[in-house]
Amino acid sequence: MSLTIKLQLLSHNNHYHANKLIKNKTFCNKTNFLPKPIFGNNPLIITKCSNKKVNRRMQESFMIKSSLIEPDGGVLVDLVVPENQRDSKVLEAKSLPNVKLTKVDFEWVHVICEGWASPLKGFMRENEYLQSLHFNSLRLNDGSFVNMSLPIVLSIDDETKEIIGSSSNVGLIGPNGDYVGILRSIEIYKHNKEERIARTWGTTAPGLPYVEEAIASSGNWLIGGDLEVLKSIKYNDGLDNYRLSPKQLREEFDRRKADAVFAFQLRNPVHNGHALLMNDTRQRLLDMGYKNPILLLHPLGGFTKVDDVPLDVRMEQHSKVLEDGVLDPETTIVAIFPSPMHYAGPTEVQWHAKARINAGANFYIVGRDPAGMSHPTEKRDLYDPDHGKKVLSMAPGLEKLNILPFRVAAYDTKANKMAFFDPSRSQDFLFISGTKMRSYAKSGENPPDGFMCPSGWKVLVNYYESLQTEASQQPVLSS
Amino acid sequence: MSLTIKLQLLSHNNHYHANKLIKNKTFCNKTNFLPKPIFGNNPLIITKCSNKKVNRRMQESFMIKSSLIEPDGGVLVDLVVPENQRDSKVLEAKSLPNVKLTKVDFEWVHVICEGWASPLKGFMRENEYLQSLHFNSLRLNDGSFVNMSLPIVLSIDDETKEIIGSSSNVGLIGPNGDYVGILRSIEIYKHNKEERIARTWGTTAPGLPYVEEAIASSGNWLIGGDLEVLKSIKYNDGLDNYRLSPKQLREEFDRRKADAVFAFQLRNPVHNGHALLMNDTRQRLLDMGYKNPILLLHPLGGFTKVDDVPLDVRMEQHSKVLEDGVLDPETTIVAIFPSPMHYAGPTEVQWHAKARINAGANFYIVGRDPAGMSHPTEKRDLYDPDHGKKVLSMAPGLEKLNILPFRVAAYDTKANKMAFFDPSRSQDFLFISGTKMRSYAKSGENPPDGFMCPSGWKVLVNYYESLQTEASQQPVLSS
Repeated sequence: MSLTIKLQLLSHNNHYHANKLIKNKTFCNKTNFLPKPIFGNNPLIITKCSNKKVNRRMQESFMIKSSLIEPDGGVLVDLVVPENQRDSKVLEAKSLPNVKLTKVDFEWVHVICEGWASPLKGFMRENEYLQSLHFNSLRLNDGSFVNMSLPIVLSIDDETKEIIGSSSNVGLIGPNGDYVGILRSIEIYKHNKEERIARTWGTTAPGLPYVEEAIASSGNWLIGGDLEVLKSIKYNDGLDNYRLSPKQLREEFDRRKADAVFAFQLRNPVHNGHALLMNDTRQRLLDMGYKNPILLLHPLGGFTKVDDVPLDVRMEQHSKVLEDGVLDPETTIVAIFPSPMHYAGPTEVQWHAKARINAGANFYIVGRDPAGMSHPTEKRDLYDPDHGKKVLSMAPGLEKLNILPFRVAAYDTKANKMAFFDPSRSQDFLFISGTKMRSYAKSGENPPDGFMCPSGWKVLVNYYESLQTEASQQPVLSS
Repeated sequence: MSLTIKLQLLSHNNHYHANKLIKNKTFCNKTNFLPKPIFGNNPLIITKCSNKKVNRRMQESFMIKSSLIEPDGGVLVDLVVPENQRDSKVLEAKSLPNVKLTKVDFEWVHVICEGWASPLKGFMRENEYLQSLHFNSLRLNDGSFVNMSLPIVLSIDDETKEIIGSSSNVGLIGPNGDYVGILRSIEIYKHNKEERIARTWGTTAPGLPYVEEAIASSGNWLIGGDLEVLKSIKYNDGLDNYRLSPKQLREEFDRRKADAVFAFQLRNPVHNGHALLMNDTRQRLLDMGYKNPILLLHPLGGFTKVDDVPLDVRMEQHSKVLEDGVLDPETTIVAIFPSPMHYAGPTEVQWHAKARINAGANFYIVGRDPAGMSHPTEKRDLYDPDHGKKVLSMAPGLEKLNILPFRVAAYDTKANKMAFFDPSRSQDFLFISGTKMRSYAKSGENPPDGFMCPSGWKVLVNYYESLQTEASQQPVLSS
């Protein structure tokens, strides 16, 4: 696994100041980069400045809603227990049978407790699991559907099931040993891994990154229930400031008086092709009559596969993109989406879109082969590159979200810049894949001028250099 | 494949009389049984008697509707071309690029053209295929959903795709060489077999019967479009009389003044446990206040796996069950459901239920592990035996259907009959599985008294004896 995030909960101060963390070298990572605040975009500080206004609004209504789009189920789920109940809940958690969370489980606790998966209020019980697996959606009491394409489940092994016995509630222990939460009114049911994998990925081929990380060696049982989280989730890695909850994002969109929010999900560095389509989307929204469209540049922060660029490096790179003016900091919010990555193509892109509804985005940009990857055992893409946007446009529960399909961008060798592909002069265009981009950066070779802003590119080159330095410093074992 | 149905289209007379066919030995099958009319239940004759009334009703409205439940999409699909257009359509089909249908394809043509899959009007285009695969449902123009859990698709190989070229329409040729229909406004798209299998069955293990029969060696492309069928589908196997279309069934339910119709899907012989729960269901419906509940005993007539009992033997056996009075012919309709069997458990049971909505049934009986089988490579059931009824109760588009879960029946060794299982004296009950039943019949051993009516049992014993006789008459090859 490439991620080197240290999972540590902050014990006291949830509103950690970014600069303080950057000077604090307790968060270490292999890359030797110290993440810096995203240029012109330190959202928590901004949110703090707007507290008065937000509080007034909050007093008027206890529901967190955006003016732009309702969260799924109508109310944004928030499962962090009030401060005055924390001590007693910690004691209770300690008294219960325990379930130890993996890093990925912990990321899901984060996702669920902040309401990204609203109206889901905990790990899925069988009823929700089956609906997710078979229908990619959940039916609400009023008969309407919300989208829910990925099973958000917690597995336990036979021994843990035995220990839980007939207890109704369990305490959850995070990867670093801290008590994280309580799962109430639990239901334990069989974990048929083969069926889960086949229905989620459309393949059971060995080598699916999430399967290898989080399913293959997981327990034979799933445990669902209502989640309570003992305190806000922090990773103490210098990036917590950018982990804005759906509630915080909605508040920030309101503060900025956004009349449209368009979300861009990514797990890769931003090149000028991405920037082109984000800027183009903004222009399209202005042309449609919106006065203040805000871009939510929303890199995924949870588990990614080993050859993806780590989160801290990506955040540094995104910062350079804003600093260089490739994207406008005035109309852009950079924040981290805490979900782990499934690489489940058309099934996963629905989750990516649905979670952004809950964060207040009413437009979602979708490109070629979203959440896709190469087939792990065959020489082809795992998914049809067009299926993602097609499935997204048809998915139950996403009707209220405006889907904005990409135009394809490529490097225009005549104009020496990234441009929308023009099939009438296809010979002038160069397609630079993620793999190609990484191989440029690894070899220290520069991509064509105009592919990416130079300072952003340097971040990647430095990262790959640091990997090589690290590798050369490894002791060589004599054979 | 165990089925020995001869696929022949009747050229002139759609209303073939059953007795005529029974005397006509041109339909041969390995079992040496001549199917006879189901006792007291020759539905086509009954339907003919009621033509006057039906015609009056038909004149009032061109929509075929039952008073009990609307077909999906509001109108029952009927894709058989009017007689006066037939000749010109046959000529047109001959002039078009052709697609040759397998037996299973032909069964799907039958299913589609009679409206079992309403509102589907042909083999699925990609848009419908993706919705079926990912959501088990189709969204209609009004935003509502109908259930559609199985991809109903037609595959073609590279060569056929090449031949079709840019033609908008193709002619369909049945397995016996006759022109069967036309597929119009076609769309050709990739057939990703792995993904289709994984998402439909929740496994990609080798040995799934439908996959081996109809997918493994099928073409790399799927072809969707609007279907026109040149004449009503007949198999000329002595059983066509029992292949009542949804339209005919709806007419028959109305003729019998049914105020509830409960459908029982089966692909096995009827034992007294089945009969017990069908009779019990009728009593429950009477207790609920219905005055005239009608049972639709609806054996599946399409492709089944090699060790299932063939359709003609099952029909003979069902006839004995009615003749012996185990089921009441007055309140039972026996008809054949023309679909092929997928053995896809919770995914397929939705199809079985949905098709019966279109046939006018407003109650559906579901038991343990519907459409299930053993895992082809592991020593376990392929599906959790409870998932079928759970998934069915949650499935989008099946809200209007009343799902009636089984109580478990087993052989009560104290009462010497099939009875509802009583867990308080579980030692008194004997569970006789399908495999066990077949092994009794194969060995000529009698099951316990009261397991099945003796004349029905004799049908099975004769069938297995005939198989052994046949096997002993095979020439022995010296090794």
